[in-house]
Amino acid sequence: MTGNPTMNDVAREAGVALKTVSRFVNGETNINPVLAGRIADAISTLGYRRNLAAASIRPGWTSKTIGLIISDLANPYYSALTSAIESFARERGYLVISSSSDELGTQHDRLVDRLMEQRVDGLIVVPPRDPGRPWSAVTPPIPPLVFVDRPADFPQADVILADNAGGARAATAELLAHGRRRVAFVGDALGISTMRERHAGYRAALEDVGIAADETIVRTDAHSSRQAAVAVAELLAKTDIDAVFAANNRASVGALLAFRDAGRRLPLIGFDDFEAALVSSPGVSVVSHDIVEMGRRAAELTLDRLAGSDREPATIVLPTRLVLRGSERI
Amino acid sequence: MTGNPTMNDVAREAGVALKTVSRFVNGETNINPVLAGRIADAISTLGYRRNLAAASIRPGWTSKTIGLIISDLANPYYSALTSAIESFARERGYLVISSSSDELGTQHDRLVDRLMEQRVDGLIVVPPRDPGRPWSAVTPPIPPLVFVDRPADFPQADVILADNAGGARAATAELLAHGRRRVAFVGDALGISTMRERHAGYRAALEDVGIAADETIVRTDAHSSRQAAVAVAELLAKTDIDAVFAANNRASVGALLAFRDAGRRLPLIGFDDFEAALVSSPGVSVVSHDIVEMGRRAAELTLDRLAGSDREPATIVLPTRLVLRGSERI
Repeated sequence: MTGNPTMNDVAREAGVALKTVSRFVNGETNINPVLAGRIADAISTLGYRRNLAAASIRPGWTSKTIGLIISDLANPYYSALTSAIESFARERGYLVISSSSDELGTQHDRLVDRLMEQRVDGLIVVPPRDPGRPWSAVTPPIPPLVFVDRPADFPQADVILADNAGGARAATAELLAHGRRRVAFVGDALGISTMRERHAGYRAALEDVGIAADETIVRTDAHSSRQAAVAVAELLAKTDIDAVFAANNRASVGALLAFRDAGRRLPLIGFDDFEAALVSSPGVSVVSHDIVEMGRRAAELTLDRLAGSDREPATIVLPTRLVLRGSERI
Repeated sequence: MTGNPTMNDVAREAGVALKTVSRFVNGETNINPVLAGRIADAISTLGYRRNLAAASIRPGWTSKTIGLIISDLANPYYSALTSAIESFARERGYLVISSSSDELGTQHDRLVDRLMEQRVDGLIVVPPRDPGRPWSAVTPPIPPLVFVDRPADFPQADVILADNAGGARAATAELLAHGRRRVAFVGDALGISTMRERHAGYRAALEDVGIAADETIVRTDAHSSRQAAVAVAELLAKTDIDAVFAANNRASVGALLAFRDAGRRLPLIGFDDFEAALVSSPGVSVVSHDIVEMGRRAAELTLDRLAGSDREPATIVLPTRLVLRGSERI
């Protein structure tokens, strides 16, 4: 025999019907054990292997893959999210094709096209900072789609978010409760919905205690921990800030780097937990949500759709939790 | 027209030959601009989309995907490696299907089978701690295969490693040069080749200065930073160690956690760089190799094979570098 053996070859070798081989290969368990044994032997003898790439183009069959677009896998927040999605998908027999948009709309759009060409069964997407084309401009059929961490403009998609405004408000309020009055905001561009919401929460906490927001101590140009370190160093050198609210884990790391270089620490609370928060002494207090839970929900919503659920699109907002480790009252 | 439009439909709509549409769709640029414009219009009108899942089962076509098996995406070492591989593969038009073995041979074997069923064009694999089945037992054809970080038992595969023994020897020697005589080794199981080599390098450095290795201050049960923290806490409490060589980034973080809890730091050098190393004061000295370079080489070796290279299998050993930040002489 030449070429890859087919299910037909297995059926012939085992002396059973093609349908029985198909049921065996797809993991059905209510098969006559004698026939199952013969099929297993035939598969081993012939070296038969399923071809899921081929299966995915037959009606009713699927590729058993989920496409995932995040902003940057090198950011531990997104690698933790990806790890959780991958783990839950794998439990249900799905593999994840993950790729990074680097926050660029054009790259995001290319990846959406590429993943749809690949016939992924579902898509989980963190919308990028720079807006790409509208989803209404994407040629259907669009597979089941879940936005995670940030919403986007496709009403049929499920959405999973954290309570960004509420978390930022609680973190800022905690700093104010310790007598701070000049709390800096350090984060990424307000074009990112999470940043916009966290900034709104920060302002709401200031308003709650009658402090006017001061845009000169708000920095939204920190795309990396290095850039955040520069921003905090400038705030330390040129302003009278007396505390820092770091609006994501990159900003928190940047604040710690700037404190180290300046030889002094200010009270600090960050959004999202991060490894160095524990190593630092005192530990860095954070407001955070459960990333593993976010990944699990994203995988579940996608897999529910693939299992045929036609419920209304859902928007799930995960609660945040303030974890105090001492850095709020240095 | 019902169903998904085909290349034939596009050819008919544009009034050009099927071969021209095929060349256009596959990105060839030397096409008559007038015809290219008509094809682009037809693709837009019909909503045509390539089907790479279908393409991958035609002779000579490929799925344009690479399968990647790492041990754990939540470990920043592996997320950085994955990010680099993904980025270089994407530049060349390939997507990466990544999945974690969690160091389990059985899970690794299932993923190998699953990725081959998915008809990935190439496989990049970090062999797991617990050995799976031998590669000789995997039914051919096995796609181009690259082992990264750790070697395995398949002579046709390319292999990319770091100079683990040399790096560990240099790190330990540095601690000894500062007068330390009771240097603990804290790491993961010696069943992992990188750990075995780093342990050998550690012992070689001790021998170089005439110190007998003492297995009571060698801990190889630290699979996570938490477990490493427990191991270092015990060494601090029950032995006379005067320095720590942390054999991977998990062990380094664990050592910092134990130092914080014990209220005292010992001289420390870690293998592999990590974010908290910079935040800590003084910074944690590390011996490390270039992870982005390792990922780039892994992607390149795979893509070279896919481009038809039939050179002999290569084993590349990346050099390590000792980065001193102060923690070696606390």
